[in-house]
Amino acid sequence: MSIAASNSNANAPTQLLRGARETYAYRRVGGGIRRPLICLQHFTGTLDNWDLAVVDPLASEREVILFDNAGVGRSTGTVPTTVAEMASHTLDFLDALCVTSCDVLGFSLGGMVAQEMATTRPSIVHRMILVGTAPRGGEDIMHLDKPSLAAHLGDPSLKGYAVLQKIFFAPTSSSQAAGAAFIERLGERGEDLDPPSGPNVAAAQMAAFREWERVTATGAADLGRITQPALVVNGVRDEMIPVRNSYRLSEGLPNAMLLVYPDSGHGSLFQFHDSFTRQGAAFLGSDSPFAPF
Amino acid sequence: MSIAASNSNANAPTQLLRGARETYAYRRVGGGIRRPLICLQHFTGTLDNWDLAVVDPLASEREVILFDNAGVGRSTGTVPTTVAEMASHTLDFLDALCVTSCDVLGFSLGGMVAQEMATTRPSIVHRMILVGTAPRGGEDIMHLDKPSLAAHLGDPSLKGYAVLQKIFFAPTSSSQAAGAAFIERLGERGEDLDPPSGPNVAAAQMAAFREWERVTATGAADLGRITQPALVVNGVRDEMIPVRNSYRLSEGLPNAMLLVYPDSGHGSLFQFHDSFTRQGAAFLGSDSPFAPF
Repeated sequence: MSIAASNSNANAPTQLLRGARETYAYRRVGGGIRRPLICLQHFTGTLDNWDLAVVDPLASEREVILFDNAGVGRSTGTVPTTVAEMASHTLDFLDALCVTSCDVLGFSLGGMVAQEMATTRPSIVHRMILVGTAPRGGEDIMHLDKPSLAAHLGDPSLKGYAVLQKIFFAPTSSSQAAGAAFIERLGERGEDLDPPSGPNVAAAQMAAFREWERVTATGAADLGRITQPALVVNGVRDEMIPVRNSYRLSEGLPNAMLLVYPDSGHGSLFQFHDSFTRQGAAFLGSDSPFAPF
Repeated sequence: MSIAASNSNANAPTQLLRGARETYAYRRVGGGIRRPLICLQHFTGTLDNWDLAVVDPLASEREVILFDNAGVGRSTGTVPTTVAEMASHTLDFLDALCVTSCDVLGFSLGGMVAQEMATTRPSIVHRMILVGTAPRGGEDIMHLDKPSLAAHLGDPSLKGYAVLQKIFFAPTSSSQAAGAAFIERLGERGEDLDPPSGPNVAAAQMAAFREWERVTATGAADLGRITQPALVVNGVRDEMIPVRNSYRLSEGLPNAMLLVYPDSGHGSLFQFHDSFTRQGAAFLGSDSPFAPF
């Protein structure tokens, strides 16, 4: 590769990789002797939605790989309407990258993709951090029409990322201040940006949420089969994917540790980025076969 | 003081201190520049029930003070039948010791006493670790007659601490092995032992659980008034005080971080003592006004 390494998502170059079916956009940040950490993004999020306050500290001891799934950002193809198909594309991407074992940070929709990867190809997932996400058959997943979210999504005075500040953070002055700082950090990357996701991305991903919410006969059993160490993280006031979904993950996954942050919503990892990256790095760096670290 | 310092609950001498109403038995372990950590014990537990794998690592950076409440172990007086009265005795003890600010580790019943102390005299409680406990008005608190517990408590083949291994640990081979190791560690202290608690201690403390389980008009409001940073910890399979009580603490306390361990019951802190003391020390050592660390 002729592309220089970067230690920050503020300036890591976006790269393209041809997979079996599609060409995927991705970025590599940092490096180190540990296995890489693949980051799987939230609803409508692109490479540019990864907060450098989360990515950069984690990248100080390992390579962090940010990834646009099919049809998102500059990746080619159609956005899948199931989590299973998103996991399939992620595995195609890792195969093309010749990665046979990695850690996974899955946020929201990305956490569902991570669970699906761990179920369909357990050998490739070493440790998982699942933030603000839900198991299959979870409750109240991304119902943007409910009043607490619709009020902000339908507010014409909120432009651009301002709506993200409202729905990713709790309605307290402290959480909203953390949200404003998050939005400001997102602006630190000035060029080589992904195109923002349009309505077609949102519609397909929303269909995937609805499919994931359905209870299947094997739902609970699948959770019990995921034996990799997992760190489940959430904000106690998450309106988008409520914390009781994280309780269910912690109760159903046989080898998971649960960590819940106060005064925060869906974006708890961005609000408490110092704590999250400290805890996340300690979890990922553990040599134990068990989740507690 | 002529009594030599000890770095382990295996041999720290038991001391007696005259308070306003009673004489209290206690032990001081370790030392350091940080404020002391007061440890408040579980149902029928004495100074000898504090696992040195939990106490000793925490005592490496601070003084850890183990305490027998009124009527327990070698402390004089009658065992109170309310958590409020137990908190009152704990404050008497700290007053006699001239401690005006401390951290508190409250396990099970001790976690309820810690909440009551933080409510009645907020100035004395700096940070709290609440393990395997419940808020006032919590659910299914210490119902020893339910089948999952009664089966062990009524088993004549289980002698001495063997019953503790069954009810403090989950019914998996890994958790039971951790329980056996815990019981073995309790045996490392060979002399200067507290008398075991008798039926009168159990009856009074059980009355306190029943009183604590009652919802009062101000119950939820009291939780919201506890603004000290708190670390709430539980085992996901706690049968004695189920984990949903820890969810309620995390949801109700405005400044609490929740940490739930897999494959463990009421005694999660003993099972995962390496992780618990690492996390606990990091939490107690934080200079932030917020719980996340």
